[in-house]
Formats: sequence, structure tokens, C-alpha cells
Amino acid sequence: MENFIYHIPTKIAFGRGQIQMLPEFLKEYGNRVLVLYGGGSIKQNGIYDDAVGLLQENGIFFSELSGIEPNPQIDSVRKGIEICRRKKIDVLLPIGGGSTIDCAKAIAVGVFYEGDPWEIVKDNSLITKALPIVSILTVAATGSEMDASSVISNAKEKDKAELFSELLYPKASILDPTYTFTVPAYHTAAGVADIMSHIFEYYFNGDRIPDIQRGMMNNILRTCIVYGPIAVKEPKNECARANLMWAASWAINGFIACGTASSWPCHALEYQLTNRYHVPHGHGMAIIDMAWMKYILNETTLPMFAEYGKEVFRIEGEDPLQTARAVLGETEALYREMGLTLTLRSIGAEDKSEILPMAKQAVEEFGLTDGSSLSLSREAAEQIYEICY
Amino acid sequence: MENFIYHIPTKIAFGRGQIQMLPEFLKEYGNRVLVLYGGGSIKQNGIYDDAVGLLQENGIFFSELSGIEPNPQIDSVRKGIEICRRKKIDVLLPIGGGSTIDCAKAIAVGVFYEGDPWEIVKDNSLITKALPIVSILTVAATGSEMDASSVISNAKEKDKAELFSELLYPKASILDPTYTFTVPAYHTAAGVADIMSHIFEYYFNGDRIPDIQRGMMNNILRTCIVYGPIAVKEPKNECARANLMWAASWAINGFIACGTASSWPCHALEYQLTNRYHVPHGHGMAIIDMAWMKYILNETTLPMFAEYGKEVFRIEGEDPLQTARAVLGETEALYREMGLTLTLRSIGAEDKSEILPMAKQAVEEFGLTDGSSLSLSREAAEQIYEICY
Repeated sequence: MENFIYHIPTKIAFGRGQIQMLPEFLKEYGNRVLVLYGGGSIKQNGIYDDAVGLLQENGIFFSELSGIEPNPQIDSVRKGIEICRRKKIDVLLPIGGGSTIDCAKAIAVGVFYEGDPWEIVKDNSLITKALPIVSILTVAATGSEMDASSVISNAKEKDKAELFSELLYPKASILDPTYTFTVPAYHTAAGVADIMSHIFEYYFNGDRIPDIQRGMMNNILRTCIVYGPIAVKEPKNECARANLMWAASWAINGFIACGTASSWPCHALEYQLTNRYHVPHGHGMAIIDMAWMKYILNETTLPMFAEYGKEVFRIEGEDPLQTARAVLGETEALYREMGLTLTLRSIGAEDKSEILPMAKQAVEEFGLTDGSSLSLSREAAEQIYEICY
Repeated sequence: MENFIYHIPTKIAFGRGQIQMLPEFLKEYGNRVLVLYGGGSIKQNGIYDDAVGLLQENGIFFSELSGIEPNPQIDSVRKGIEICRRKKIDVLLPIGGGSTIDCAKAIAVGVFYEGDPWEIVKDNSLITKALPIVSILTVAATGSEMDASSVISNAKEKDKAELFSELLYPKASILDPTYTFTVPAYHTAAGVADIMSHIFEYYFNGDRIPDIQRGMMNNILRTCIVYGPIAVKEPKNECARANLMWAASWAINGFIACGTASSWPCHALEYQLTNRYHVPHGHGMAIIDMAWMKYILNETTLPMFAEYGKEVFRIEGEDPLQTARAVLGETEALYREMGLTLTLRSIGAEDKSEILPMAKQAVEEFGLTDGSSLSLSREAAEQIYEICY
């Protein structure tokens, strides 16, 4: 166990109707709000009206930035910063999933930086201050509603990079599971794969992980495999939606990472997919995680696969190797049951010539050859992409 | 699942040597500190020197309040308030276990109240403001280092009552497991029983507890039964001490309570013991919890006892009632293995005539006949005390 600092200051209002807390949460930080959202689904399902109605009733001024992309682009960040400065915004109010909240986070720090915000995305040491964020979550997946990071894309440079700072924790987030009832089956499935991927980045690490965090990892994975298929089949199952929503926040809010370390190899490998192909991040994660687990299964990781089988899938066998293979089969079956394909070809990556540049970029930019137990060489990354075919 | 608000703002620095963070943590809130501690064991084991050395090196002014009792008395609170006002204290620095931190919390709110602080303990609505608290933990038990409550005793009135307010979360706490190496075996055992008791107050509740919280409860109980006996036998086992320390914080910081409810019946029953007999709270909890579990075992609670057996003790049987009895036996064996006796007679309660007044006070003052699934009548409370003989 390594020493750690634990600090998750985000306040969560969880449950049906918790949007009622919105005015109180906002007014703690000011009276001028920027509402951010994506393609406008929140206008169809009534969430926009709920939120904006409360702003109007409470005399809270607001501007809007809509059209935030599924992989939020630096251009949207630039637009948001401009509005914040012009309208003297006090608080950001993203309504959506991880993309919208991530975009808000980049705007929050970009407002206080004089140069172009892409510079701050590429060099987090330039972060000095952030506007407060209150979020309303509509998709259980990235955990951005309760974490300190943000991933921003730059289409022009075919690049994707991460902002990370304790200043990025939203001040408060509203988690109403009924707000996820209208998430389509495919995106629900991708969200579940995304939640699981956040655990996998630590789970097979050889470090001595503190028992409380280890137990929480199993707990979150178990919640995903139990409720993922239910939420895909019954979109209005509130129990399934609620458990997944809360699991998503805890998978990445910083808690399970306390006392261990990871270079997040699978995310590095996946970012290359969303940079090149039209695939939601969570679906890309399912493809990569599956291939990566097959790649890393060896004598050292065997006990951790056995634990994954026992604690998550309740599979126990005499022979650990057999158990490990069974658990890989169960994981694959789970993804497929939720409707996720598991090959690169299925997402339009016909051409294997991209393997080398993807492997190169993943390993170099994310420092995956860090000597840790889950270190990946460029050759290893290539092999993992090969397994995806 | 009920709606809930989650907000645990305390920052934790966990691990060997984390006391180095102390100056940074304190300076965020001011430069005038009140150091609080108990009987002076921190002067023998070097923790006092570590802390005070850092204060001196960093030019931080400090006063002291020592001699805080194992069940902190309102008189100590009064003394502390007087010092804070006279010395213009900015931050409280309790070094110790739950008693010392609890005392600091009462002082923190009492400073801003003009009347006698016992009034505020008995009527929490009088709380308006609190001095910031940075704590250094030396005993894994009450979880006061990361929670919003404080229990204060009033020897003169043979009374004990609770302060509860979000303002009471310490701003930061330093959790160095090596600081618990010198906790004697008996107090280590009582601490483990205390941690477990915080879970039991929710565990057998018939409500639909969110899966993530339910999993965390099993996780914490499992950590206690695995590492409790080890820490009792090997006081310098850092792994055992670290896991217990972190489990203690999570047992009561507010997380597991999210989405469920409890009137804390066992604590109400136990407070009557520490009010009357010389027994540490954790030991009292072991006695009460054991009797209470026997009392509440019925058809409704049977599945929860079966889960407790399966997830915590890894006992699985064909017959649920047999499993439940086996798990009661295992719990009893665990307490005894750690050296805790389990009868009222063993703590000097020879006279059964106290049963009625204890039952009456527990049920009336703590509102235990609240109609919830774990509601207790006065007669039920009497029966539970009877089982303790």
C-alpha cells in the first residue's frame, strides 16, 4: 500500500426529484450561470425544462452553450470561455453525460488562462483557478460528475488529452436515476463498459491494494454485471439505473485509486480508437479491455483473475487457469449480451496499417513503459490491437 | 432506496510519515492552534513531539488542553472554549482517538455559542458555526476523524448526548497506521468492535440498501474480522493496522448511511452502560450487539444474517437458520478471540435492577419506537439487557 491523499469534496444529491436542490446549489456560488448541453436530447426528455424552470423561478440569470460533441472539442471550450468572459458567468451548469461535464471543466480553468485553452489541456501545470461547476447527470458512465479529470479532443490535430486537477471536482452534482431512462440501449451498454474499464485499470495491478479499495472494486464490478444487462433490457428499471449511476461515480472519483497506482494503459490504447474511428469511448473500452485481459493473463495475474471470477461472477473452480478462462468468457458474454461487438473490424477499422501508429502514440504519449507491473511496450500494444481483430 | 445527500469534505492524508502534511493543513486555516490530547500517552510514544516539533519549526503558535477523558466530559469542553476565546484560536488540533476529536468538535461549535455548551449538545439546532479542525488519529475506532458527529458526557447529570452537524467534519485528518502500534490489545479489540457496531446499526435493516453501500458494509466487516485478531496479537503489523484504520473511517463517515435510515438502537442501549459502568464504548458495543443480534434473529432478518455469513465469514449452508446461528457463533468467537467478555456481569453490572431504568432511558431519549423495521419497545430493550446476563 502506498501513502495517499484522499479528498473528494463534491456534494451529491441522489435520487428522483433531486433537481429541486439546484437553486440552493447554484446560489452558493453566484447568480450568473452558463448552461451547457449536447445535441438537445434534454429538450425532448424534459430535463432542460426542469432545470431552466428552476433558474427562472429563482431569478437566476443564464446563458447557454449547446451542441457539445460526444468527444468534446477544444472549439467548444473556446466558445464557452468567450461566453463566460462576456457574460461574467459565476457558475457552470453542464446538463448531460461525461462529455458535457468534461467540456465545462476545461472552460472552468480556461477562463483564468490568457493563452489558448489547448495549451492548458496539454500542460496541466498552467491551471491556477477554476469556476465552480454544478452538474446534472444524464448518463451513467464517465464519472465526471464526481471526479477531477476531463478529456478534451482536438479534431484538427487528431489528438485527445486529459486535464487533471483537484480544482476540477464539481462543487455539487445532481444524480437522478430517472434522468437516465431515455439513454438508448447501446449507450447504456457502452456506459457500463466504461464504468468497468475504470476499475480494470487498477484491478490486475500487482501492488498491494488496500482491502477497502479492493472490496469496493469488486463491489462496483458486481453492480455492473448484475444491473448492466437489466438496464439495457428495461430502460425504466429505476433500481438498475440507480445502482449503475452510483457505481459510475465511485469507479473513478479517486477512491479506488487511493494507495495504488496505474498508468491507465487501456485508456491510452482506447483513445487511439476514438481519435480515428466513430465509436463511443465505452464501446472502445470494451474492445480494448477484452483483448488486454487476454494479453495480460499469466502466472502473476492469475490470482487476480481468480478473485475477479469469485467475487464478481461467483465462479469458483479447482484449477485457477480454468477459472481465469471461464471469467474471460463470462466478461465477453456480458458485453455481447448488452449488445457490444468486440472487434476492431466491427467499428470500421478494416486496415491493420493503423496498428503501428496507434501503438506508438499510445505508448509514447501516455508513458506506458513506466516499469510498473502493468507496463506496456510498443510491441505489447501492437499485440493487443492484433488480438482485437 | 431513499434519496440522499452525500457530502464528505474531509481531506485525509493516509500512511506512514504523513504528519509531514500537518503545517500545510493547519496554515490553510490560521496560525493559532489549540492542541488537544488525553492522558498523555502521545508524550510517551513520540507523536506529541512529532506534531509539536512541526508547529515550532513552522512558527505556528499553540496552546494546549490535555487530560481529555475517555468519554469526553462537558467540563473539558468548557475549558477548551475558554482557551479558544482567550487565545484567539484559529484551528483545533486534536491528537488522539474519538474522545479527543469529539471534544474538539464540541469546542469548535461551543466557541460561537454564548450560553453553556451543554445546551448546544442537547439541542443541535443551536449550532451556527464551527472552528476548523485538523486531527491526528491515534486509535482506529470511532471514525470521528472523518465524520460529522461527537458524543459528549455529562457526569453530573449521568447523561451522554450527541452533536451532529455537517459543520463538524474535520477539515483534514492525518491517518498514520504506525501511530496505532502502541494501542493496547484490549483497546484495539474494543476499537474493532466499535467499527463493526457502526455497520450493524444499518446492516439488518429491512430497507432496500443501495448495492454499493451494502457491498461496502460487507467489505468493512470482512476487513474487521480478518485484521482485528491480527492487530490484537501483533500490535506492530502495519498492514492490519492500516486496513483497520481506514475501515474505521468508512464505517461511519456517512457513506454507508446514504439511502437508508437507522435510529441507532444499539448505540442507545450501549450509552446506558458507559453512563453507569467503567467500560470502554467499544467493549460495551460488543456486549450489546451480540445480545441484540440474538434478539432480532427472525424470519424477516434471516436473509440478512445469511448474507452476513456468506459475505463476511464465508459460511454457506443449506439451511438459512443453521447458517444464521453459525454466524452468531462466529461473531461471538471473534470477540472472545480478541479478548472481549460478553456479559454485563463481566463489566461489574451485578445488579439487574438497573435494567428497567436503562431500557427506559435508551428508548425514550433516542426515540427507538420509531416504527422503522428495527424499532425497539421498552420491553424489547429490557429483554436485550436480560440476554446480556
